[in-house]
Amino acid sequence: MASVKVGLIGFGTIGGGVAEILLGKADAIERTVGKRIELVKICDRDTTTDRGVAVPPGVLTDQISDIFNNPEISVVIELIGGIEPARTFILKALEAGKDVVTANKALIANCGAELFAKARELGRTIGFEASVCGGVPVLASLQTSLLANRIESIQAICNGTCNFILSEMESKDADYQDAVKEAQRLGFAEADPTLDVNGSDATQKLAILAQLAFGAKVDWKKIPRVGVDVVSAVDVKFARELGRKIRLLATATRDEDGLALSVRPALVPKDSALGKVTNAFNAVQIVGDFVGPLFYQGWGAGRRPTASAVCSDVIDAALGRAKITFDSLRLWSDDRPGVEIKDPHKIMERVYLRFVVEDRPGVMAEISSKLGARKISIAQMMQASHPESEGVSLIILTHAAPTVDLDAALDDIRGASFILGETTRLAVVD
Amino acid sequence: MASVKVGLIGFGTIGGGVAEILLGKADAIERTVGKRIELVKICDRDTTTDRGVAVPPGVLTDQISDIFNNPEISVVIELIGGIEPARTFILKALEAGKDVVTANKALIANCGAELFAKARELGRTIGFEASVCGGVPVLASLQTSLLANRIESIQAICNGTCNFILSEMESKDADYQDAVKEAQRLGFAEADPTLDVNGSDATQKLAILAQLAFGAKVDWKKIPRVGVDVVSAVDVKFARELGRKIRLLATATRDEDGLALSVRPALVPKDSALGKVTNAFNAVQIVGDFVGPLFYQGWGAGRRPTASAVCSDVIDAALGRAKITFDSLRLWSDDRPGVEIKDPHKIMERVYLRFVVEDRPGVMAEISSKLGARKISIAQMMQASHPESEGVSLIILTHAAPTVDLDAALDDIRGASFILGETTRLAVVD
Repeated sequence: MASVKVGLIGFGTIGGGVAEILLGKADAIERTVGKRIELVKICDRDTTTDRGVAVPPGVLTDQISDIFNNPEISVVIELIGGIEPARTFILKALEAGKDVVTANKALIANCGAELFAKARELGRTIGFEASVCGGVPVLASLQTSLLANRIESIQAICNGTCNFILSEMESKDADYQDAVKEAQRLGFAEADPTLDVNGSDATQKLAILAQLAFGAKVDWKKIPRVGVDVVSAVDVKFARELGRKIRLLATATRDEDGLALSVRPALVPKDSALGKVTNAFNAVQIVGDFVGPLFYQGWGAGRRPTASAVCSDVIDAALGRAKITFDSLRLWSDDRPGVEIKDPHKIMERVYLRFVVEDRPGVMAEISSKLGARKISIAQMMQASHPESEGVSLIILTHAAPTVDLDAALDDIRGASFILGETTRLAVVD
Repeated sequence: MASVKVGLIGFGTIGGGVAEILLGKADAIERTVGKRIELVKICDRDTTTDRGVAVPPGVLTDQISDIFNNPEISVVIELIGGIEPARTFILKALEAGKDVVTANKALIANCGAELFAKARELGRTIGFEASVCGGVPVLASLQTSLLANRIESIQAICNGTCNFILSEMESKDADYQDAVKEAQRLGFAEADPTLDVNGSDATQKLAILAQLAFGAKVDWKKIPRVGVDVVSAVDVKFARELGRKIRLLATATRDEDGLALSVRPALVPKDSALGKVTNAFNAVQIVGDFVGPLFYQGWGAGRRPTASAVCSDVIDAALGRAKITFDSLRLWSDDRPGVEIKDPHKIMERVYLRFVVEDRPGVMAEISSKLGARKISIAQMMQASHPESEGVSLIILTHAAPTVDLDAALDDIRGASFILGETTRLAVVD
């Protein structure tokens, strides 16, 4: 049986892990799946840095044409990240008749429709398991094992950097900035962590999950998004007093009005499955009408877990399984049935509000009355002095209310003379 | 595109759920996967009981030949359970050129080699996702998503009945017998719960997992097995004092000496992922060399979750994906690489021992000395009076020791005059 030849573009952290598997485990994989998979070319601009993998002579190149023009290569792995030149490289690989495997969630979230249409037109496939939740095979489950289900909801902790920062704030009473620094020191956050901490990364992943689980075609930039950068040590402390932990949740929930999507820090019960997810772990809770609640947890990033996911896609492509899955699901096509996106303003949500207010009688009454005027009812209220600054913290947990009314009530309150600082608003998920 | 026609054998609880999906969701599934799947025959001896599903005229039959002799049927679902006549029916279906889907773990564990060899010989496939952990797609992950990994270990809570009983004992301080009755009342345990509570069911599932994850061909009856029927209310209470919960764990761990397999109640940390699995939930923790620890939790039994798994296999067969997976993995064949099974006596394990002993000085010293003579070292010791009976309970948690030495030490102690009752031995997993 002929071997399947693979080319890899991008020899960084993940690329090193993929090379480690494909070069080091070729015999084991062949024994298990009955097919030899050969990594024959690795392309990177930098061909001198040691990646900790022994690469046979002739494999490493800095010429991308060595991959596109090699007719023997049938699967191309793209691991350079970002939109360009990754997009162009993937289109070229497809045009050269090659199947593609990528870990690039930004590219899939931004250009999924274009890339998948091109792959369909050319009879090729795109595998992207590693783009969401790294080693956790949640995309595979949505594309195969859960197909008999109508998916009702997805709640995902899909950004390990944010979960590490929140865990660090929790376990060490650390400030947000110190937690970010510790995440950077340990390699869980990049030098510029903006796209992680502002929720962009999680939102791109949610857009991908929404297409797979609900057939929803959504511009990730239109999904309501709040990052962990709004969370203070004091919020973590109040959450603890309320028996809760703060997690950055990417949520998709279907009801009769459509699909509600959002990414935001949420107070979850401390003993819930999501509340127990610490460190840089990822987790996903999927509810299907037949399977019920299904919970996954594992490493969502990093060299080895991500390489595990990339190589499972390579094996799928090599065996021809990817072709069946790809052709049957018609992802991002107009032909695929999809759920309408719900107007974000109509989403109902419980919220945690922390007002920094003057320490004088009547403030609590004024805030309650302004919330009441917008028909927002209060589930719980706490007041605490704010050692670091003037004024006191007034914490309110509301019952579920339309976000449009919450927005309006907060607008009403913002201008009041007793408000001394920014109001923090987090979701509450039970 | 021609539809794929399906025959169902067994119209009980699970069969009803499968019919509900295949009859009620045929349009939705066709829209999603681009293929029409038609349930054209349902065979059961009892064709009169209402299963809560509207069955079109001509579909229900009590003649099994209506399925085997229908050349249009290409996929046969077996849901009658047990060895015979399920085995014969599956062989006949394969011989009639049909792919098979089954939820029958007893049959796969006992006759996997025979059935899979026959399917390979005839160029057909057998799907069996529902046989282990119901709706939790752990077999799919082992057969596809995790193929780049060397699996290091599996720990599974794979019997919902046992987990319900243990949860009930925990949350209500119930006796074992009362917990079993409550499980029966709620439909989580059968009238005769023997195969669940003595660990047989979990052991069959472990044998299946061992073949998928490690290529191990193992006679499930040779796997060391202890059921939850040895656990008393007093053990649950002591476990709680030790910060632990008792779970029936099916464990497969690979080391340089081979694969250690066992099923037994184990004290796990109460805040661990496995300790948090309550009610009739199933959970599996898989550790792979690249993916790291991966945790799944969901409903492991019941009409709807099991039907979800069965129908995912039917879709896989209908799309041709099952054929690729089945042919590539060569499950239960001599051709498939496998790990040697470790001699059960060489397994190292920490244990919890509860001795019921005379309340007199010197007993503790005698027991410690007999354990010491077999080089078993003690990590923790507790003594408590035993309100219901004479004597006191002496609890010992050991450090890890070879099970052969633990067996010998317990033999040494068994005959001693101060022993007043049966000694309970449970595993301790950290």
